[in-house]
Amino acid sequence: MTISNSLIDSKLRSAEEIASLLPRNVTIGASGFTPAGYPKLIPSAFANRIEEEKKQGHSFSINLYAGASTGEELDGVLAKTGALKLRIPYQSNSHLRNLINAGEVDFIDMHLSHVVKYIEHGILPAIDVAIVEAIDVSSDGKIYLTTSSGMSATYLGAAKEIYVELTDVHPIELKGYHDIYLPDHHGKGSPIPIINVSDRIGNPYVQVPIDKIKGIVRTSIPDASVDFKLPDSDCLGIAEHTLAFLQSEIKKGRIPANYLPFQNGVGNIANAVLASMAKDPNFHEIEMYTEVLQDSVFDLIDSGKLKIASTSALTFSKKGVERFHKNINEWKSKFIIRPQEISNHPEVIRRMGLIAMNTALEVDIYGNVNSTHVMGTSMMNGIGGSGDFTRNSHLSIFMTPSLAKNGDISAIVPFVSHVDHNEHSTMVIVTEQGLADLRGCPPKKRAELIIEKCAHPTYRDKLRAYFEEAKNVSKGKHTPHNLDKALGFHIQFLKTGSMK
Amino acid sequence: MTISNSLIDSKLRSAEEIASLLPRNVTIGASGFTPAGYPKLIPSAFANRIEEEKKQGHSFSINLYAGASTGEELDGVLAKTGALKLRIPYQSNSHLRNLINAGEVDFIDMHLSHVVKYIEHGILPAIDVAIVEAIDVSSDGKIYLTTSSGMSATYLGAAKEIYVELTDVHPIELKGYHDIYLPDHHGKGSPIPIINVSDRIGNPYVQVPIDKIKGIVRTSIPDASVDFKLPDSDCLGIAEHTLAFLQSEIKKGRIPANYLPFQNGVGNIANAVLASMAKDPNFHEIEMYTEVLQDSVFDLIDSGKLKIASTSALTFSKKGVERFHKNINEWKSKFIIRPQEISNHPEVIRRMGLIAMNTALEVDIYGNVNSTHVMGTSMMNGIGGSGDFTRNSHLSIFMTPSLAKNGDISAIVPFVSHVDHNEHSTMVIVTEQGLADLRGCPPKKRAELIIEKCAHPTYRDKLRAYFEEAKNVSKGKHTPHNLDKALGFHIQFLKTGSMK
Repeated sequence: MTISNSLIDSKLRSAEEIASLLPRNVTIGASGFTPAGYPKLIPSAFANRIEEEKKQGHSFSINLYAGASTGEELDGVLAKTGALKLRIPYQSNSHLRNLINAGEVDFIDMHLSHVVKYIEHGILPAIDVAIVEAIDVSSDGKIYLTTSSGMSATYLGAAKEIYVELTDVHPIELKGYHDIYLPDHHGKGSPIPIINVSDRIGNPYVQVPIDKIKGIVRTSIPDASVDFKLPDSDCLGIAEHTLAFLQSEIKKGRIPANYLPFQNGVGNIANAVLASMAKDPNFHEIEMYTEVLQDSVFDLIDSGKLKIASTSALTFSKKGVERFHKNINEWKSKFIIRPQEISNHPEVIRRMGLIAMNTALEVDIYGNVNSTHVMGTSMMNGIGGSGDFTRNSHLSIFMTPSLAKNGDISAIVPFVSHVDHNEHSTMVIVTEQGLADLRGCPPKKRAELIIEKCAHPTYRDKLRAYFEEAKNVSKGKHTPHNLDKALGFHIQFLKTGSMK
Repeated sequence: MTISNSLIDSKLRSAEEIASLLPRNVTIGASGFTPAGYPKLIPSAFANRIEEEKKQGHSFSINLYAGASTGEELDGVLAKTGALKLRIPYQSNSHLRNLINAGEVDFIDMHLSHVVKYIEHGILPAIDVAIVEAIDVSSDGKIYLTTSSGMSATYLGAAKEIYVELTDVHPIELKGYHDIYLPDHHGKGSPIPIINVSDRIGNPYVQVPIDKIKGIVRTSIPDASVDFKLPDSDCLGIAEHTLAFLQSEIKKGRIPANYLPFQNGVGNIANAVLASMAKDPNFHEIEMYTEVLQDSVFDLIDSGKLKIASTSALTFSKKGVERFHKNINEWKSKFIIRPQEISNHPEVIRRMGLIAMNTALEVDIYGNVNSTHVMGTSMMNGIGGSGDFTRNSHLSIFMTPSLAKNGDISAIVPFVSHVDHNEHSTMVIVTEQGLADLRGCPPKKRAELIIEKCAHPTYRDKLRAYFEEAKNVSKGKHTPHNLDKALGFHIQFLKTGSMK
């Protein structure tokens, strides 16, 4: 079915025409979140225009803001032009990442729940144009977003000009999945009225003044399909330790028998946990309050265990999208898509008492977690929502295989090379080796638990040796360190290619 | 006036008698917060008993939980017995600190807003007895606390036995200052109904079952008096930069003309900021939503500028207490004393959009802040509420003089030796040299601002040299570091006594 009305008809343009209207120095607010629901045609046409006009000696400068990461057709094509100067607040595209780590693109790695305020208060360069993917635009300016909410409502509000990629990739019944609500800032706030995961508190669309819509292009390009690998034995090991721990917490009365809502990060480990829950007869009627749903949620649906899931994006594989389309009416009561300020809001996270499960790059012996910086200097993807969830959830669990790079990197190190989540906020560390419950443990006890339960046997002796020497030479014995050798694992890796 | 009723009369004991009833292995939940409203007679009598019975070969083991720090008559006397094994969640007593840093007392350094949950969920050893200072106990078990709320309501609820130090140090009109309210946990929560600083949502007392009250002792010992120094030129310099910045934020529309509520940390810098606000004609009608009020609040009152202040403790000097007593009826509309879970609650902090001002021990060139660990290993006082406020406030400002130890320590370093607040969460750094607004800045820009605006000229060249070398040798150019030298300032200080 082709969506049509007087407004759409009057605004229809080609992607090339729209691309020709964009300023050479431009700040773009785009839809899209890890990577779902981002614009594709206009950015690609804009990239083509840039390449052409660069030959004529014109220069371009682009600031690109999105919800979180987006796909090749947005981050990739614009990064490749060399015109991208600034990107916020999260990314995962390899071309873009390489430029960031070469120092050629500025990247601001932000807590996702903070982005709205930074935009509204003009902390960052002001948005010129918003480019969003939509499933429908009503004649009075109601924009119905597609598979992500992210920052779209804010960018549409802030932009001087709006361009829409009107997609027919999804059935029109996608309308109704979104719940668009943005809280007041500036101390005028009232409570966010979400008590239960299922509470809908806003509108299923973003209302914009129709005269701000300067162009609409029709598109049939799907989101870049996301790999969905079967979990490996490390991931399954992590899941097993985690599920056993959750059951023991229920027995101790710290989690109610019907659980608390789960948040889980993106990637194979998080997926393995959900897949294992789907199989485990101890788990049933699960609620999720998270920022991204991946195909692993289907395991929960198939096993009849998903009660409801709130998210800011539906990031499914090609097969997953097909399944979603087939069940799009039925699942409207299963999924709610929220703006990232609400999916990641400290108030709601703390009130619901989430169980947060996120991936660490490395963890030190005292429980400080690095989620973002490889060897302390190169950006992986960004902190994303992990800070929002870690600081405010009931339980904060960090997961990582104990080894990386074929064993040349230990994920457990004496001193992390960058801190995204500190020892005051992290509660549980899990590797395939085991689980360390750090709650209520003073620093030296934490070190013992992490080394003995989580480190790979290959590195355990080396970590023990560091810790023993630290206890001897450290000036303070509260959190003993030997600063001469604290970053020794990393320094050795940089010099020799191995921490061994 | 001596408070009396049938319950009090029936429970009156001497401190020695109560001390004799305490188990040798005991977990105590005490009133008290930075250091106000803590019990004094019973701990001192208990310490005497321990010294006596140790001579007879008996051993003691004490876990001590309080709101935050307490005074010599609690932390000090118990630390000196050598029987203290565990202390949470914050401390500032020199005897206790020395034992913690000698590795002889375990200390868990916690976000103050997390303590209630850890107690309720049995993460920490269970509380045997609660010992609280009160101004009154009604015959039906309503306990009226004194100058702090802290954790008292939770400890009174959790304890099997309750002992009360009934003080006549304060006028009975202290009744009514407290607003005791604790939110539900376990995902049963509803919004915390505080919209404005002035909202009272609970009771002015803690209700306990009268049969849990096992003893009451009368006391006339005041809180240890707190030093209140006149601000030095560094503190005034920091205040000046901060106030100018706040005015510019108002001009940019990021803070409303009538401000947002202020949180400010403990100490001379925070006091200098309030004193300067009191003098500055640009500031008027100030609200505070904070965890500790010190004498500096009187400057605001004297200048007619304090609208209302919410706190978890009134920590005044001896002179300050006299003034408070004189105005105790009039100021009941100025001050609200709340449990620390509410004074520090992420939901309320974020909703109100606080302006948080806390003290840093050291700051690195990328804006990571160390608030707790001297040279990465020795505990100063603890993170306290700085994490609660930093992560959730509208504006998060960290303040420190640029030098310490007569210039042998630079507060600005290449890489902090411990991270309590990371670059994702810190927004503004101020020293007497200047102010660095880090919001919206990618890492290398942050480094330039911090070095050029905040570092002391003595260390600026050395920091520039580190940063330039880091940009050359760093594998990743996003957050350049030379890991070989990242901790070099600290290592040099430990070896030579100076970072110069």
